Amino acid sequence: MDDVKALVFDVFGTVVDWRSSIAKHAAAFGAEQGIEADWTAFADGWRGKYQPYMNKVRTGELPWTKLDVLHRMGLVELLGEFGINDVGEHTIDELTMAWHYLDPWPDAPSGLSRLKAKYIIGTMSNGNVALMTNMAKYAGLPWDVILGAELAQAYKPDPKTYLTGVELLGLYPEQVMMVAAHQNDLLAAGAEGLKTAFVPRPMEFGPARKPDPTPDPSFDIVAADFRDLASQMGV
Amino acid sequence: MDDVKALVFDVFGTVVDWRSSIAKHAAAFGAEQGIEADWTAFADGWRGKYQPYMNKVRTGELPWTKLDVLHRMGLVELLGEFGINDVGEHTIDELTMAWHYLDPWPDAPSGLSRLKAKYIIGTMSNGNVALMTNMAKYAGLPWDVILGAELAQAYKPDPKTYLTGVELLGLYPEQVMMVAAHQNDLLAAGAEGLKTAFVPRPMEFGPARKPDPTPDPSFDIVAADFRDLASQMGV
Repeated sequence: MDDVKALVFDVFGTVVDWRSSIAKHAAAFGAEQGIEADWTAFADGWRGKYQPYMNKVRTGELPWTKLDVLHRMGLVELLGEFGINDVGEHTIDELTMAWHYLDPWPDAPSGLSRLKAKYIIGTMSNGNVALMTNMAKYAGLPWDVILGAELAQAYKPDPKTYLTGVELLGLYPEQVMMVAAHQNDLLAAGAEGLKTAFVPRPMEFGPARKPDPTPDPSFDIVAADFRDLASQMGV
Repeated sequence: MDDVKALVFDVFGTVVDWRSSIAKHAAAFGAEQGIEADWTAFADGWRGKYQPYMNKVRTGELPWTKLDVLHRMGLVELLGEFGINDVGEHTIDELTMAWHYLDPWPDAPSGLSRLKAKYIIGTMSNGNVALMTNMAKYAGLPWDVILGAELAQAYKPDPKTYLTGVELLGLYPEQVMMVAAHQNDLLAAGAEGLKTAFVPRPMEFGPARKPDPTPDPSFDIVAADFRDLASQMGV
């Protein structure tokens, strides 16, 4: 573990609470438009479009398309499913930007600040660079560097996403630790030689849908939150 | 100017004083190796290799090659010119890394911190991502995002370098301001529609070689240093 120079983070769900944040932004949109709906279900529905739309890129059905654009495609589909019609293009653009302004889990900003004192900290998200940059300023996330899918033109868990980040850092895979609340993300990074830290976020999908809490035995670290991660990493 | 959302910076010479920093690192190398030389002339000589080696990439004589590797090629040539032989490969690697650890001009960290409160601030350098990331931690440069040549696989003043950065920010060119001490860099950015801020650094090349201080009339802002730039940008 002494070789680790950089920690790179999954963001949606691991660093920020997308579900309550998107529900909040969607509720504000509803109030403005005079529409009533279950906005938490709306948030879940929107996130439900995430993997299917990325799959269109992964399979080649779509050429490389950044996440902002996939979010917008999913939103248009979702609005139809909710029976919400007659929303202007500009309003759809604005609501799409909700993903740039997500609230962090309470331990994230302080935990990241501690880790930054000793390590390079960066994003390793499927979110595009502008999304990550705007979110960092909004949520107080002190990244040293924005990496991830857009720079590799490949969505996680494609090995190219992780390895492009490692290459841009000028490091070897074993000098980089992937941090995520999602086991499949860590398994994919670990298969490329990165170190792995699992930080479960049991409330990511709300109280009714708990993710599997049992960590794969291959993970290098299991931490309760980012403050615990910082302590385990010696800062 | 109200439309500007992001400021992107040339780094070598504009944000950091490469000349005295490289002379210092080279002198430390000399002391370790028991070699005497004019280390300021060594710094000037090394920087003198910069444009010729980037030209090899620009003309296609070399495929895309990141600046760390070009710096190393230039160093090997320079050591020969200084009659310094028998230096091990690992020592050459280490000395190449000197470019990752350059001291800022005194006004840079505080001026950037002020600008960061209102704007996205990023690098728009020919230096590679790892170089910029390590330098930021060493010199206290609070970048929101690392952009530049490596992400475009093109060296400034190629329009692609600037336009790739603008695209990654999700902005229009007129929402991005290029900041540099070098007029050719600003003219190239301005030709692509970016706003421009000229911050002369008369001591970049030492007391004997003063760059032309007369700003091109097309520049949107001329500032004495980064604190003055922050004031002119309303922060």
